[in-house]
Amino acid sequence: MKEGVILLEHGSGGQASARLLREVILPHLGEVPLLDSAVLKDFSASLAFTTDSFVVDPIFFPGGDIGSLAVHGTVNDLAMVGATPLFLSVAFILEEGFPLKLFSRVVASLGEAARKAGVRVVCGDTKVVPKGKGDKIFINTSGIGILKGDFVLSPSRIKEGDRVIVSGPIAEHGLCVLAAREDLGLEGLKSDSQPLHRVTEAFLSRFGPEIKVLRDPTRGGVAAVLHEFAEATGLSFILEEEKIPLRPEVKAGCELLGLDPLYLACEGRLVAVVTREIAEEAASFLRRFPEGQGACVVGEVTRERFPLILQTCYGGLRPVPPLAGEPLPRIC
Amino acid sequence: MKEGVILLEHGSGGQASARLLREVILPHLGEVPLLDSAVLKDFSASLAFTTDSFVVDPIFFPGGDIGSLAVHGTVNDLAMVGATPLFLSVAFILEEGFPLKLFSRVVASLGEAARKAGVRVVCGDTKVVPKGKGDKIFINTSGIGILKGDFVLSPSRIKEGDRVIVSGPIAEHGLCVLAAREDLGLEGLKSDSQPLHRVTEAFLSRFGPEIKVLRDPTRGGVAAVLHEFAEATGLSFILEEEKIPLRPEVKAGCELLGLDPLYLACEGRLVAVVTREIAEEAASFLRRFPEGQGACVVGEVTRERFPLILQTCYGGLRPVPPLAGEPLPRIC
Repeated sequence: MKEGVILLEHGSGGQASARLLREVILPHLGEVPLLDSAVLKDFSASLAFTTDSFVVDPIFFPGGDIGSLAVHGTVNDLAMVGATPLFLSVAFILEEGFPLKLFSRVVASLGEAARKAGVRVVCGDTKVVPKGKGDKIFINTSGIGILKGDFVLSPSRIKEGDRVIVSGPIAEHGLCVLAAREDLGLEGLKSDSQPLHRVTEAFLSRFGPEIKVLRDPTRGGVAAVLHEFAEATGLSFILEEEKIPLRPEVKAGCELLGLDPLYLACEGRLVAVVTREIAEEAASFLRRFPEGQGACVVGEVTRERFPLILQTCYGGLRPVPPLAGEPLPRIC
Repeated sequence: MKEGVILLEHGSGGQASARLLREVILPHLGEVPLLDSAVLKDFSASLAFTTDSFVVDPIFFPGGDIGSLAVHGTVNDLAMVGATPLFLSVAFILEEGFPLKLFSRVVASLGEAARKAGVRVVCGDTKVVPKGKGDKIFINTSGIGILKGDFVLSPSRIKEGDRVIVSGPIAEHGLCVLAAREDLGLEGLKSDSQPLHRVTEAFLSRFGPEIKVLRDPTRGGVAAVLHEFAEATGLSFILEEEKIPLRPEVKAGCELLGLDPLYLACEGRLVAVVTREIAEEAASFLRRFPEGQGACVVGEVTRERFPLILQTCYGGLRPVPPLAGEPLPRIC
C-alpha cells in the first residue's frame, strides 16, 4: 500500500479510509484506535485547551517536518500557559496524489514526537481534497493539558522594571524553513523545533509567581510577542541587541537576506518576563536544561514613547515597529 | 475591511492577523478573546475529546454552510459517545484571495450555531495559504464534552436480536451538497445538519444501558456505520427497505442519479442500536423531539453470511457491500 498515492477514496469513510487508518496511521500512533471521540477518564483539575493548524512549506526541513512540528507547536502552546500536555487530537487534510510513502514518514515523525513529549494522540480525522485544492498535507493538532499552578500567567502581571529572558538562540526555525523552501543554499541551519513543557514545568515550579508570563515566539517572532505584551500593558520593552542570542549561521543568513531576526519564528524557544530580582538566576536555571541552552536576559520593561525599542550594538536606540505584511509565509 | 480579500499577511501573526481576529472573527464568537490556549477551570469529570476537519464544497448549501457544519459535526461526535459538549476550538485554513465578506458570513454562521448548541468557542487559530494551495476555507473544530453516564456506549455491547433505529429521514445532507456542487437542479433538498446532543442526552437518560451504541452516519452513510458495527461484533445487520425513512425528494434524486441512499451522509441524524424490548418505545420517544421527527426501527441484529443485508420492498434479500471508492467527495 505504501507505494501508492492518496486517493479521494481515502477520505470516503469506507474501506479505503479504514485501510489507510489501519496500515499507515495507527501503526505510528500507538495501540489505541483513533475513534471519533476519545474518552478521558476521571478528571479533577483545571484544563488548558489549544488548537493549531500546520501548513508549513516545505513539509520536510532540516531539524524536523510538519509531523513533529504539529506536536511541538501544540505542546508548547499548552506549556506557555503553565499546563502539562496530556492529550492530542490529530486531523489531516491530504491532497489527492500525495505519495503514501511521504505521508507515512510524516505520521511516523508525528508519532515519535508525541512519544518523546509524553503526550497521547487520542482522536483523529482524515480528509482528502482533490488535486490542486490543497498542498500535500495540512495537519491540525488540538491539545488538552492539566494546569497545576495556583497563579495565572498573563501579560497583565508585567510591571515596569521586569526583565525579558529568551531561552536560547532565536530566529532559526523561520530562517531554516525559508532557506529550505527557496533553496537558498544557506549552510548549517537547523530548525529549533522542540517541546518545551518539561523546562516550563521545572521553571514554574522553581520560580512560581516571580514569572509573569511565558510565550513561544512563533509567527512574527520575538517582536510579535513583545508587541502583544506592550499592547496589553501599555508598557514598553527595550532589548539589548548584543545580548540577543543568535547562532552565527543565523546572523549571517539574516544579514545576507536583509531579514530582522526579531521577526523570525522559533518553534522551540520561549520568551519569559520575570521580576528583576530573579532574572539572572532564572536565565542560569534555564541554561541547565538542553532546551534552555543559551538562555539569557535580553531586555527590560520600561516606559518609553515606543512599545519596542532595540538598543543597538553601537549604543543607539531604534524603535522596532509591529510586523506589517508577511515576510515569511508558511513557516508553521 | 470586509470589502477586501484574505491576504497572506492575515496569517502572519502580526498586525493584519490581529485586525482580522478583532474585526472579523471575534465579533461573532462572543466576548472571550481567542487565546492560544484556553483555561477551563476546575473539572471533575470524565471527558470526551474529538476533532474533525471540514472541507465541504460548496461552502454554502441549502440548510447550512461550512461554519454551521463545523459546529454540528463536532457537537454530534461528542453526543454519540454520550457526552455533553461544552467547549470548541476553531482553526481556519484560508486561501489567499478568499473574500472577507464570505469569510465573515461563515464565521457568523459558526458563531450562531455554537450559541444555539450551547457550546463555547474558547480557542482558535488562523492560517493563510497562497492562492491555489487551498480551496477558499477549511475549518477544523475540536471539542471537549463531559461524560455523565455510568456505562460506555460501544458496538461491543451489541447482541443478536437488538434493533436498529434511525432518528429521521436519511441521506439528505450528502445528496443536497452534491446537487449544490454540481448544480444538478434537484429541487426541494435541504441539508439535515443539526446538533443532536440535546436529544441524545434525553434519550440516554430515559433508556440508559438499553441503548447499546449511537453513531452519526456521516461519511459513508448508514451503511458505513453498520459495516463498522458488523466488523466490531462479527454479527450481521438486516434492514427493511420499506421502513427506512427517506423524503420523497431524496428518493427521487437518488433514483435519478443512481445513488444508494444507504451510502449518503447525514449530518443531523443518528443510528442507535437498542434492545428489542425498548425498540418501538425508543423510536416513539425520539419522534417527540424536533431532531427526531421520523425516527423509526429499521432493522435488527442477526447472524447471516453477509454483514449487511437489505430486505427489499419486494421481499428479496440483497447484501449491501462495504463502500469501496468515493462516490461523493467533500460532503463534510
